[in-house]
Amino acid sequence: MSHTRQTADGVAPASHAPRDTASAPFVARHIGPRGEDVAHMLDTLGYDSLEALVDAAVPQDIRQPRPLELPAPMTEATVLEELRRIADRNIVKTQMLGQGFYDTVTPGVILRKVLENPAWYTAYTPYQPEISQGRLEALLNYQTMVQDLTALPIANASLLDEASAAAEAVLLMHRANKKKASGVTLLDADLFPQTLSVVQLRAAAVGIDVLVADLSAGIPAQARERIESQGLCGVVLQQPGDSGRLHDHSAVIAEAKQAGALVTVAADILSLALITPPGEQGADIAVGSTQRFGVPLFFGGPHAAYMAVREGMQRSMPGRLVGVSHDDAGKPAYRLALQTREQHIRREKATSNICTAQALLAVVASMYAVYHGPEGITRIARHAHRQAHRLATALAAAGVSVAHEAYFDTLTLSVPGGAEKVRAAAEENGVNVRVVDADTVRVACDETTVDEDLAAVLEAFGASADALPAESHEGAVALPGIPAEAQRSSEFMTHPVFNTHHSETQMLRYLRRLSGYDLALDRTMIPLGSCTMKLNATAEMESISWPEFCSIHPYAPENQTEGWRHLIADLESRLAEITGYAAVSVTPNAGSQGEFAGLWAIRQYHKDRGQQQRDVCLIPASAHGTNAASAVLADLKVVVVATAEDGTISAEDLDRKIEENADRLAAIMITYPSTHGVYDADVREVCDKVHAAGGQVYIDGANLNALVGLAQPGAFGGDVSHLNLHKTFCIPHGGGGPGVGPVAVGEHLKPYLPNEQTLMTSAPHGSAGVLPISWAYVAMMGGAGLRAATEHALLGANYISRRLADYYPTLYTGNAGLVAHECILDLRELTAKHGVTAEDVCKRLIDYGFHAPTLAFPVAGTLMVEPTESEDLGELERFIEAMIAIHGEITATTPETVEASVLRNAPHTALALTADEWGRDYSRSQAAYPVESLRMNKYFPPVGRIDGAYGDRNLVCSCPPPEAFEESGDSAADA
Amino acid sequence: MSHTRQTADGVAPASHAPRDTASAPFVARHIGPRGEDVAHMLDTLGYDSLEALVDAAVPQDIRQPRPLELPAPMTEATVLEELRRIADRNIVKTQMLGQGFYDTVTPGVILRKVLENPAWYTAYTPYQPEISQGRLEALLNYQTMVQDLTALPIANASLLDEASAAAEAVLLMHRANKKKASGVTLLDADLFPQTLSVVQLRAAAVGIDVLVADLSAGIPAQARERIESQGLCGVVLQQPGDSGRLHDHSAVIAEAKQAGALVTVAADILSLALITPPGEQGADIAVGSTQRFGVPLFFGGPHAAYMAVREGMQRSMPGRLVGVSHDDAGKPAYRLALQTREQHIRREKATSNICTAQALLAVVASMYAVYHGPEGITRIARHAHRQAHRLATALAAAGVSVAHEAYFDTLTLSVPGGAEKVRAAAEENGVNVRVVDADTVRVACDETTVDEDLAAVLEAFGASADALPAESHEGAVALPGIPAEAQRSSEFMTHPVFNTHHSETQMLRYLRRLSGYDLALDRTMIPLGSCTMKLNATAEMESISWPEFCSIHPYAPENQTEGWRHLIADLESRLAEITGYAAVSVTPNAGSQGEFAGLWAIRQYHKDRGQQQRDVCLIPASAHGTNAASAVLADLKVVVVATAEDGTISAEDLDRKIEENADRLAAIMITYPSTHGVYDADVREVCDKVHAAGGQVYIDGANLNALVGLAQPGAFGGDVSHLNLHKTFCIPHGGGGPGVGPVAVGEHLKPYLPNEQTLMTSAPHGSAGVLPISWAYVAMMGGAGLRAATEHALLGANYISRRLADYYPTLYTGNAGLVAHECILDLRELTAKHGVTAEDVCKRLIDYGFHAPTLAFPVAGTLMVEPTESEDLGELERFIEAMIAIHGEITATTPETVEASVLRNAPHTALALTADEWGRDYSRSQAAYPVESLRMNKYFPPVGRIDGAYGDRNLVCSCPPPEAFEESGDSAADA
Repeated sequence: MSHTRQTADGVAPASHAPRDTASAPFVARHIGPRGEDVAHMLDTLGYDSLEALVDAAVPQDIRQPRPLELPAPMTEATVLEELRRIADRNIVKTQMLGQGFYDTVTPGVILRKVLENPAWYTAYTPYQPEISQGRLEALLNYQTMVQDLTALPIANASLLDEASAAAEAVLLMHRANKKKASGVTLLDADLFPQTLSVVQLRAAAVGIDVLVADLSAGIPAQARERIESQGLCGVVLQQPGDSGRLHDHSAVIAEAKQAGALVTVAADILSLALITPPGEQGADIAVGSTQRFGVPLFFGGPHAAYMAVREGMQRSMPGRLVGVSHDDAGKPAYRLALQTREQHIRREKATSNICTAQALLAVVASMYAVYHGPEGITRIARHAHRQAHRLATALAAAGVSVAHEAYFDTLTLSVPGGAEKVRAAAEENGVNVRVVDADTVRVACDETTVDEDLAAVLEAFGASADALPAESHEGAVALPGIPAEAQRSSEFMTHPVFNTHHSETQMLRYLRRLSGYDLALDRTMIPLGSCTMKLNATAEMESISWPEFCSIHPYAPENQTEGWRHLIADLESRLAEITGYAAVSVTPNAGSQGEFAGLWAIRQYHKDRGQQQRDVCLIPASAHGTNAASAVLADLKVVVVATAEDGTISAEDLDRKIEENADRLAAIMITYPSTHGVYDADVREVCDKVHAAGGQVYIDGANLNALVGLAQPGAFGGDVSHLNLHKTFCIPHGGGGPGVGPVAVGEHLKPYLPNEQTLMTSAPHGSAGVLPISWAYVAMMGGAGLRAATEHALLGANYISRRLADYYPTLYTGNAGLVAHECILDLRELTAKHGVTAEDVCKRLIDYGFHAPTLAFPVAGTLMVEPTESEDLGELERFIEAMIAIHGEITATTPETVEASVLRNAPHTALALTADEWGRDYSRSQAAYPVESLRMNKYFPPVGRIDGAYGDRNLVCSCPPPEAFEESGDSAADA
Repeated sequence: MSHTRQTADGVAPASHAPRDTASAPFVARHIGPRGEDVAHMLDTLGYDSLEALVDAAVPQDIRQPRPLELPAPMTEATVLEELRRIADRNIVKTQMLGQGFYDTVTPGVILRKVLENPAWYTAYTPYQPEISQGRLEALLNYQTMVQDLTALPIANASLLDEASAAAEAVLLMHRANKKKASGVTLLDADLFPQTLSVVQLRAAAVGIDVLVADLSAGIPAQARERIESQGLCGVVLQQPGDSGRLHDHSAVIAEAKQAGALVTVAADILSLALITPPGEQGADIAVGSTQRFGVPLFFGGPHAAYMAVREGMQRSMPGRLVGVSHDDAGKPAYRLALQTREQHIRREKATSNICTAQALLAVVASMYAVYHGPEGITRIARHAHRQAHRLATALAAAGVSVAHEAYFDTLTLSVPGGAEKVRAAAEENGVNVRVVDADTVRVACDETTVDEDLAAVLEAFGASADALPAESHEGAVALPGIPAEAQRSSEFMTHPVFNTHHSETQMLRYLRRLSGYDLALDRTMIPLGSCTMKLNATAEMESISWPEFCSIHPYAPENQTEGWRHLIADLESRLAEITGYAAVSVTPNAGSQGEFAGLWAIRQYHKDRGQQQRDVCLIPASAHGTNAASAVLADLKVVVVATAEDGTISAEDLDRKIEENADRLAAIMITYPSTHGVYDADVREVCDKVHAAGGQVYIDGANLNALVGLAQPGAFGGDVSHLNLHKTFCIPHGGGGPGVGPVAVGEHLKPYLPNEQTLMTSAPHGSAGVLPISWAYVAMMGGAGLRAATEHALLGANYISRRLADYYPTLYTGNAGLVAHECILDLRELTAKHGVTAEDVCKRLIDYGFHAPTLAFPVAGTLMVEPTESEDLGELERFIEAMIAIHGEITATTPETVEASVLRNAPHTALALTADEWGRDYSRSQAAYPVESLRMNKYFPPVGRIDGAYGDRNLVCSCPPPEAFEESGDSAADA
């Protein structure tokens, strides 16, 4: 395309000035309402201009005095040229560094139809299961794949990264093994260094005692002493180890069990096709990364980590779990199971703060398994192993000492004093290998390793490629590096879904069918309050799959990652300008991680000032549950501050709580605008009070879409914030991840930002792979465009609030009766009078072709609506029309008639609507076409309302057999 | 992605050996049936192996003696690496060459959601309108856009390229102006050179007298003499001219009208936003390219050409026309109008042979218009004009003579003796400009032209960029190069569709909604006999949108197009090996063009051998209509050869026709395997007889998917063939184009292949842009893989034929009762007995979720089924199950009950199935879910059966107003 204007040799054109074009500026593509629509909307609200609306809504004392100082906006064409120039400063080598990150081939059909397909990437977390059956099925496939490969019965739908998954496993062992809670947790010294680092930090934060020990020859004496004195809570092993060695862990596991400990094995997902899986070794928990199942390296992330557990631990497992239940016609239907486990319900009793996971990447990995099937996965695993073995043989023949006899794909090689020389020579040959120390080099093989790679490595060692053993033929290959007793004998991925879609045509149709089940942003607005479901523009998305971005290993040498480091630093600096903070780190790979990082910074700050005792975190009652959970994980004690009648923080209660906690006050954690969708007028006062008491102010950036360009949290009182790039800065939600949660801090907290020493995730820059999305958004919008987005977000929310005022009153408003970027519609009176619940309205909206707003957060019995700036007036009106029509349906209902009503029986499937027998209290057309426009454009959900309680009582978390659907067909017909 | 393994500087890795991976070989992704399925299918047919099946089906005397000699197959990853290396041999410059091809920005959302989206590109031509409403709406938008911009009331849904569209216009004027048929047709000397070349060739072929004349100052004296002596049939003008000059054509047009001539204006589509359109100038016909509406340069194609005509000419216009009719519920519905115009009905009375057009590219261009709207298009046109004017001003200030005062975007510049020096300097500066002659340079501005481009050009002329006039602000700009009387004053694109979808969110949803209406290969098999709807793999498609392929101008210097020329030559050589011919040219941009090129070669061959009188082409009765049409256009007389009872060519009639035409026999044109889906056993004999009589043998390659790897037409008797890369070689059908129709010839015909002197299309290499698709397919399959594809295609067709034998007998079979790659199911007896027509079955298949097979070709009352090798056994069984169920429905029907039957009332929309009143003779579930699996996966067509005759009687070929749908809603409710 001309829009990237790359020259043939890949080098950017000589001149670097932006190539402007005659296209519309991007801001006009990003923002929905056009000029005349804006005038109409302002008129409805009684304002002359957007400025006037903003002046009325936003407290003057927090307004920023000057416009954002950002570079002039680029067009879509020029931003791609600039990204091309940045990308070209990265250097792609064959990545044989290993350490948990491997080259892999993303099948084209999965790349294009999942990773680059808005039907998948713009979807929200499947909390509304009726419109999410496609992505729920994909995630159930993921769980089934992990269960089969690990031989453990329950797996969740992904965690953020391998290192934090291991940390979660340590926390899980700690709470599941209450009797041994004071015991030590042993960490195998042969864990990946990043795993060790993250686990140690996270364990230390909550006071779990961990000990790193070399477990290769059993539990060492020193550790045994500790165990004897304080007991053993858990053990974390890794197989294969960081060294590549395949350990025989049976003695350690037996001893640990004996001591009453739980056992976690971090296992390479690909190796499990060949090696005895954790579940068969006696592990209670398995964790790992599924990156090498077709997910690009992405300079370290996003990648889906997995966690699987043995029977009995599922209810305390962190993360989301897809389960099978049935709908109102008895048909099997998928949903998130055990939702009460989620941290937004548990709050300060939370045991994990994970919220956004890595759904999109889990879908990619699961589809890779679906496409390759068990034979294909085995073939790929054998290939990696065979190449490692051939390399080992040739190196040994050349006199290089190979450290271990048992290995899967990674070799540790001894080259006394010559490691750096070998590395440099390999790099010169186009291959990255890992220097462990001056005498040791490590080399990992993978799916893509070909003989020329091996030759390049051999040459770097001064060995000859002629020594490579001949390729033996597929199928006849033994597993020479895997001891017989460690070889897997059990089957896996036997479900039909892994044994059907093996031609590209079949795969394409499967993906199309699943995406057809779902509602995402490519079909409808998703007016979820607090979620900011705005446009994820193609120009923002395009570069993430360029090899120069996505094929870079997170531990590649610095000279190969100039482009990445430039982009990251530049994005951090722009985010600092936007938020008014001194510095930003994009490392946290989810909002939850950002919160932890921010609170941890506060904790360390107090500690370094000799105020270790400051351990109380004030959190308003209306806060998102993750806030409290993060505080707990950062070793803070949560004290709740009450909400006043008007939805603001109760000044009285705040004063009281500050006083009560005087010397122990560490911080207050507030969201601004508040989760009530309002710009509290006294936010400066709240900040001042906390500061006066020696506390720090944490401003949750979840609602930053109502601030950008208007007010800077770092300037009006915040010491630290986290942002959600997957909200305000356009990273798509991906059906529940990836997310990025940068942490932003004032000057005094800069020393406490995450860095390479205090790792928070598996990779130094977290989910770097998706950062070009936010970078492109900021670059294309510019300062004025970003401000315009905020203004239009305000306009849309206030327009909906006003237009629906006669039907659904807005619960809280601020200055001039205005809301911020979202509004809470209060249904409680309607529910009391007519028996129709807010949930009924959510389900009924599906019949109107809409994704529901946020249900029952932050106030039960309400719906929180956030349209964002990207929704045009036509779509807003379509939503308003639907809500008014539903209001008519509600008022025609009574508590007596509600059970049989069109509302309680929503949503309606095509199957139900076309049934030969109808026999309902309302007509088919009332059910299907309550407003006329639906006759032109109608979405039918694949299942009816799902019975959540049944699914929780009868927890099934793997793919049901095909017969389940046939039976249900019958029972549906019977019903 | 690792799969392209590009290094950071864009240069391929040092070593060029293919990087093999552990992935499954591509052939296993391309071919549907797995090993165990193949065994089952062979068993059903009574064969032990594929070889045995092939040996039984294919006549021994045509079998090729040795395997194809093609390079070893590549994996998907390695083919992308190789394509990257080839692409890197092209050099992308800023293209200011003009000549009908311009840089443009493809909006990202259109690139990804149309050009790279299987829902659009794998669709078939919308002959089945009920499952094609999405693409029909897009094409109707295209027609409306062209009508509005040209100010002519009827436009078709695209032609192949601008030059052949101009040739079609000359043919149209010739037949529409019967009184002046012997008159001369004047061609303005300021037409693009490629237009002049193609028009002259095509006119000469059918004996139309054309005269090229300089019409810039009215009709010159010499031409006037000719007109006086023989009359004036038509005039073709171009605005702006090739020179860039905006001519005042009013005097020429007035004089032409006076003389009773028709007038065609070839007009730049973008210029029409600013310049008086052809319809307002008095033109009868307008033609041109829509490339610069967002379609990449593609090294010359594919691009959609347009043709618009004045009222009264629509019924003789070539190409397809989308029209508005209504469905059985009275709802407006789109369809191809006037289908009887198509050449497959007209045969030897055809006036055009165009069949495949450029639907996918027309959709891209129309969506570009939808996205930009009239204001956006005007802004882009003004930008191109303003940049040209600023350049002209600066050059004039530097003393360079600017040839014309009136221009749109292109300047002709006088540099006595210095043209090549300027060109070379500009190239050095990164810009291509055009050398007209030693003293003249031409420079074209476009949407993407920025000041640095102008500066680069100025520097090449030795002028200073400082002389550029300041950018005046948008909106306030006059049109300094366009005379006031030539400026457009009328509105265009006023329909809501061009004034609604201007944010990316809206555009995305519009595209998703339209694609949701349609069935393409991403949802179902498309078992169209003679159409070979096989997998279009992602790895084949991926490279076509790489800038190094798609941003190359067709007239760029050779040193910038090495990669393209290598790929084209290599593909031609592989196709020669596959077909057994001496040489291949990929230039023809559709099968119809390939046929013309092949027959033209035969005609020239005879002529050069002094056998000018050989002008008879024998064509079997069963041939595709295009064959006869092409023969007519190549100045051959069609003589039909009868079909014998068994479907083969009647030997008796063949002998008689050869004898009758003895000295006049030019050629026979046969399809092999025949259009009856059978390997005629006597094909060698037929060829021998024709050769003995001095004729040439043209073997239509439409059915090559039954031959590749088994038999070579160039070896068993063919002198020439054309292929369809959009059938056998995986270029997607795109909803009716692009196609590529290479012509392949024996050694003696090599001199007559299309070359740069005898242009057949606007660009030297036709639709080069899609050739990487076929190249990748051949490269990934290798010789054995290609043969395996053929074998599996045979297997699938014979399996369906056998499984359905008891329900629908196969009309023709060959050796051992076998068919080739398709089978004709004979419904005539069922129709006679039960009143159910083959069309009813096609429409009923939609209810089962299938695209229909080919209806009534080559035999009325039948369905021709071609499953291709890409369909897996599960999908074949799903089709068989549907056909058997339909058979049950047929036999339950009588001629008396058929009108009210589920078959005649098919397909059933969701709206119909959910209606409050049902009142049909069958139940809703019979209508919607005749087989159980539909309850799990159901497609609802957006409209019911469409009334074709109504649409033809009331021809409406532009977007209906929104009210049309509301009214119909009412009338549907009334009905």
